[in-house]
Amino acid sequence: MSVVLAEILRAGAVESRHTGAFAVADTDGRIVLCGGDPERAIYPRSAIKALQAIPLVVSGAADRFGLTQAELALACASHAGTPAHAAGAAAMLLRAGRDAGCLECGTHWPSSSTAARALAAAGEQPSALHNNCSGKHAGFICTAVAAGRDPAGYVRPEHKTMREVTDAVAAVTGTDLAAQIPGTDGCSIPTYRIQLGRLAAGFARFGTGLDLPQGFADAARRLREAVAANPSMLAGTGRFDTVVTEALGTAAFVKVGAEGVYCGALPTLGLGFALKCDDGAARAAEAATAALLRHFLGQHAVLDRLAAPALTNWNGLEVGRIRPCLV
Amino acid sequence: MSVVLAEILRAGAVESRHTGAFAVADTDGRIVLCGGDPERAIYPRSAIKALQAIPLVVSGAADRFGLTQAELALACASHAGTPAHAAGAAAMLLRAGRDAGCLECGTHWPSSSTAARALAAAGEQPSALHNNCSGKHAGFICTAVAAGRDPAGYVRPEHKTMREVTDAVAAVTGTDLAAQIPGTDGCSIPTYRIQLGRLAAGFARFGTGLDLPQGFADAARRLREAVAANPSMLAGTGRFDTVVTEALGTAAFVKVGAEGVYCGALPTLGLGFALKCDDGAARAAEAATAALLRHFLGQHAVLDRLAAPALTNWNGLEVGRIRPCLV
Repeated sequence: MSVVLAEILRAGAVESRHTGAFAVADTDGRIVLCGGDPERAIYPRSAIKALQAIPLVVSGAADRFGLTQAELALACASHAGTPAHAAGAAAMLLRAGRDAGCLECGTHWPSSSTAARALAAAGEQPSALHNNCSGKHAGFICTAVAAGRDPAGYVRPEHKTMREVTDAVAAVTGTDLAAQIPGTDGCSIPTYRIQLGRLAAGFARFGTGLDLPQGFADAARRLREAVAANPSMLAGTGRFDTVVTEALGTAAFVKVGAEGVYCGALPTLGLGFALKCDDGAARAAEAATAALLRHFLGQHAVLDRLAAPALTNWNGLEVGRIRPCLV
Repeated sequence: MSVVLAEILRAGAVESRHTGAFAVADTDGRIVLCGGDPERAIYPRSAIKALQAIPLVVSGAADRFGLTQAELALACASHAGTPAHAAGAAAMLLRAGRDAGCLECGTHWPSSSTAARALAAAGEQPSALHNNCSGKHAGFICTAVAAGRDPAGYVRPEHKTMREVTDAVAAVTGTDLAAQIPGTDGCSIPTYRIQLGRLAAGFARFGTGLDLPQGFADAARRLREAVAANPSMLAGTGRFDTVVTEALGTAAFVKVGAEGVYCGALPTLGLGFALKCDDGAARAAEAATAALLRHFLGQHAVLDRLAAPALTNWNGLEVGRIRPCLV
């Protein structure tokens, strides 16, 4: 069961169409708005990085290693692979007495094509530090090292640090993940299927601290404040998550996941949301998320632009537009 | 009305799903297989570049300027922007006494990220020659110059050369385009909506020469042979259209269009096809096209791989698979 999330218009005609499902919930798990089936289980992928970063703070690892606000934000990020992002991940590892050789996320060219070309123009090759997940992985390594554990193999579901990460996600979303055989994410950590409504309720808790143990609530607040203070670390200049965070600050938390996922929180309203585009398209998930934020937070020039972006061609001519359809 | 074209599997679960429509037709326009509505009108985008190249040959421009087989293939291409592609487009323009300054397609970094990084590493910037459509545009300019016309403004629907191009598409697909207000394509030329079944029948004619004026039939044959002899000019090393053409030669003609479109011909069977993924995803259009080719042409190792490609992550681990669902 799906609803239309967004349409792609060219010369006024619908050229393409994206369907999906979404849920908005409060901290008790009450669905206040949905499209499609809120019980649909999805792989949230990177959209729950902030939940996966909770053990880094709760365990005391972040304080022990003196992680900065920017580094905490990077632990929640799918970053563009700019020099600042790569340096941030390297600094986190250095604080734990480790280096990029410990990263098990794999290597790819920076997600930002501009950053990738700049790296190539400098005659360099990418390292695991450029992987968009390197901050999250550096956080896992800090968590393991602070607990006196060998971080090797931390990406495996059964590694003690990854078990803590999975337990935190399970606790915040109220989902039993112990018996589930996970998928493997792009960066090799496990990814578990979770219902949209439970993800939404989990992010309502993450955004408010309500219905969470005090340590979790404090960690969530620190992570949200770190991201709000360092929007460019969450994604990168001009990217959706960064632009929304720059515009809304602590009034919203948004995070993209691969395959058309968005999760986030509306702390001032006590709500969380989760959204999945059936076909995995980021453009539709972004437009729909902007429309959802606008629906709940009211008009905002940045959200207006992100909800219905103009489509321009290689000569800069406007040839069409994205039209959000979910609210 | 749509059907499922392909599913994205992760750990055996369906993570994402792509719907769409397709039609397979003979030269008389009889639908021999379809999914969804064969009368659905779509923007074929770049999938009809080979039809748009017919006037280049029919008009005598290709012979007058002595275009090579590789250059004729490039006129049908959405290319990767490698040095060979850019040089090919420059050579076509030079034959007509023109240069890249005449191109009206706009500039973008090479579609191939490898080619883009190589250009950046050489300290260079892209030009309109790197635009994936530069070969098609060079063909339009050759056509205009051979006819003694100023090519300036050739991208506009009312330019005489573009009118000939549109008339050729209309004739081959049996579609009246004169009254339609077109959309604008990524490279600024007009793009007209055409029914899937008519596109399929048009490509059946393109693939066989049947039901076409003799000049058109000869031009179609020359273009198909040029592409089959130069698969790397059609797209680029490792790209779907090039890989299929390398594997099947003149037994199939396939061409991608933006927003999840494929058109093509199965000359030995007298059939053509057109396919549109609702959400515009290339990965689903490719898998579905490979499955369609296999359905009609029989098992082939290359088609097996392209129809159900393994999905690997940044560590090279297989994390999932694409499953075609249309046949």
